[in-house]
Amino acid sequence: MEITFPDSLTEAQGGRIVLLVMDGLGGLPHEQTGLTELESAHTPNLDRLAGRAALGLHQPVRAGVAPGSGPGHLSLFGYDPVRYNIGRGVLSALGVDFPLQPGDIAIRLNFATIDAAGRITDRRAGRPSDDENRRLVAKLRAGVPGSGDLQVFFDSEKEHRAVLVLRGPGLSAALADTDPQATGVPPLPATATEPGAEPTARLLQQVLDRAFEVLADEPKANALLARGIDAYHAFPTFQERYRLHARAIAKYPMYRGVARLVGMETQGASADDQDSVHRLAQNFTDYDFHFVHFKAVDSRGEDGDFAAKVKAIEAVDALVPQVEALAPDVLIVTGDHSTPARLRAHSWHAVPIMIVSPWTRPQADATFGERPCARGELGIFPGMDIMTLALAHARRLAKYGA
Amino acid sequence: MEITFPDSLTEAQGGRIVLLVMDGLGGLPHEQTGLTELESAHTPNLDRLAGRAALGLHQPVRAGVAPGSGPGHLSLFGYDPVRYNIGRGVLSALGVDFPLQPGDIAIRLNFATIDAAGRITDRRAGRPSDDENRRLVAKLRAGVPGSGDLQVFFDSEKEHRAVLVLRGPGLSAALADTDPQATGVPPLPATATEPGAEPTARLLQQVLDRAFEVLADEPKANALLARGIDAYHAFPTFQERYRLHARAIAKYPMYRGVARLVGMETQGASADDQDSVHRLAQNFTDYDFHFVHFKAVDSRGEDGDFAAKVKAIEAVDALVPQVEALAPDVLIVTGDHSTPARLRAHSWHAVPIMIVSPWTRPQADATFGERPCARGELGIFPGMDIMTLALAHARRLAKYGA
Repeated sequence: MEITFPDSLTEAQGGRIVLLVMDGLGGLPHEQTGLTELESAHTPNLDRLAGRAALGLHQPVRAGVAPGSGPGHLSLFGYDPVRYNIGRGVLSALGVDFPLQPGDIAIRLNFATIDAAGRITDRRAGRPSDDENRRLVAKLRAGVPGSGDLQVFFDSEKEHRAVLVLRGPGLSAALADTDPQATGVPPLPATATEPGAEPTARLLQQVLDRAFEVLADEPKANALLARGIDAYHAFPTFQERYRLHARAIAKYPMYRGVARLVGMETQGASADDQDSVHRLAQNFTDYDFHFVHFKAVDSRGEDGDFAAKVKAIEAVDALVPQVEALAPDVLIVTGDHSTPARLRAHSWHAVPIMIVSPWTRPQADATFGERPCARGELGIFPGMDIMTLALAHARRLAKYGA
Repeated sequence: MEITFPDSLTEAQGGRIVLLVMDGLGGLPHEQTGLTELESAHTPNLDRLAGRAALGLHQPVRAGVAPGSGPGHLSLFGYDPVRYNIGRGVLSALGVDFPLQPGDIAIRLNFATIDAAGRITDRRAGRPSDDENRRLVAKLRAGVPGSGDLQVFFDSEKEHRAVLVLRGPGLSAALADTDPQATGVPPLPATATEPGAEPTARLLQQVLDRAFEVLADEPKANALLARGIDAYHAFPTFQERYRLHARAIAKYPMYRGVARLVGMETQGASADDQDSVHRLAQNFTDYDFHFVHFKAVDSRGEDGDFAAKVKAIEAVDALVPQVEALAPDVLIVTGDHSTPARLRAHSWHAVPIMIVSPWTRPQADATFGERPCARGELGIFPGMDIMTLALAHARRLAKYGA
């Protein structure tokens, strides 16, 4: 029998776990002060907890690898982000809160402009407004129905981006992009990249042909380019793997979508971070596991705004006492990856983490920061191990072996 | 699609990387002072860099395993030393700078003495001088030609050791040693260890029979013993895997040979360490990656001479400003394994490493030594991850996943 950790050891009963994720939490030292964003932030609540927490740094994928949001969160949730690779089409569909079903083919679309000869003149159709995007998607929904077994769904992303989902029996995602990534040439035909995908390629081409007819009278957005074509497969759930009844609370749909992939419940979008914590308090004891996502820390890192990232961390710190008041048995605070303001991008640097429970080996003078975490009891460890540690601290794992 | 790290993420552009390897750098504390060789050395330049570097300790193979030079360097280069196992014959051929081609069968030879009955009386033929070795090899080259498709090459190592390379279509390395590892018995016949290797066994026996005839009039070196029979296979290159145009600078041929295995360019032997650094400065910007090998640290460790190993480290430290002046984007200083003077041998202890780049989380008071490295931001990590980290610090890796 294959032994899988922690799945094969999970108990039906145990403590309640809260996972607070500050997206892009990890950082790099400011050139003047030598302190990272987290180390610079005034975080009296997180620092107080750090004095009794297990501290460490986790690597979401592996040393040197900067993860996207999908792999970063899958790692936090204990799903190998290499084995469970979420493609771009599925991530886009999750990002607009589209209710994907197993077998669905999810495709990213660009609205584009073609000339009278069919050659692309603008791969982004002059970057339409979001309102204009929604008008165009409504037109596509009305004019491009499914047929027979095939269901066709369009949804708006932002500006020139939309999502197309094909649903029906026997569809394949082994299709090449129709986006040639160049202007002056026509869009590529839908093409199978594996034997057996030809029928799906023909269906996609029919959908695109019909869409081009519907958009023919548009001055700018008179074409579509398909990219990141990807099938949605159900993942084993938190309930199945960990025996955890889990829910996700987040403002942005992509994070709720990744959480739904692993079987968490979601209940609409939080208005803001304070609203997320209010939602956490509601029906708190109905769930074994709560994932709460805070986005602003990452956004300010990607802006390259060190001071604003510091403030975003401080804003989360101010909410921590409300979380403590709910008395979770295990409270984990971490990020899904690092986003140093100096790099303005996701980075490969290991991510600070604290696990607050009665079962730690704390250092009383520790605070929450990259350097104290590097000296913590957890060391530098794979992000994939976080869920095992969470379950252990919640007393939800049986002993392995006799 | 299979994901391989870091290969699948490499960018065509990015920073320039210098890897300085002090062979056998890691050590153990002196019994009086409690400081290792590196910690005892006066290394103002390395210590200054350590204050802004990422520090850690790397394990070349795995915990507890002392690597040879081949596995140690393959790990540094990001090639799994278990999967890419260089056999002893190939290592010997590399060590004499023999230009191996894929499919070549490389064999270590001992000159030996046999008596009139053909029984081995000395497995090392009285340890001939290197000059005597060269005379014997010249005699073999003249007297043991190839035949048909088979090309035969002899080369000198030191004392009683030589190298034999067989080149031709369809050769197999699945052959047992002819060295019985004992005296009083004759050499073993060339024997296949797998079905299909019999023709190669017969060819090797013919070569050895002819060599014995050529050596028959020698008073001591009148026989050959074959060991470590091994085929040379091309490895995927640095260019293919990392998109790096790479070169190696080293005094000793074996290190240039291992570097050539992974596709690095080499340009002859450095006269000494200062010459290696001069060579590094020449055409520095023509390459993305430079590997510079310093041997003396290991040699003094194998001598068991703690003070001399300290001096060898200090001598490299004195060259560091010349390397800094070249302004590499990423400067890595480490060893391929530990060679503690107290053990007089390669050891299993993790090896100090520093990565100097703008993207570190340094501790200002750090110096370069085993204990500071153990507390560094990289922790204790597999040597196989060094290249991924190097590429990340050089901004040569794309984000993984959306």
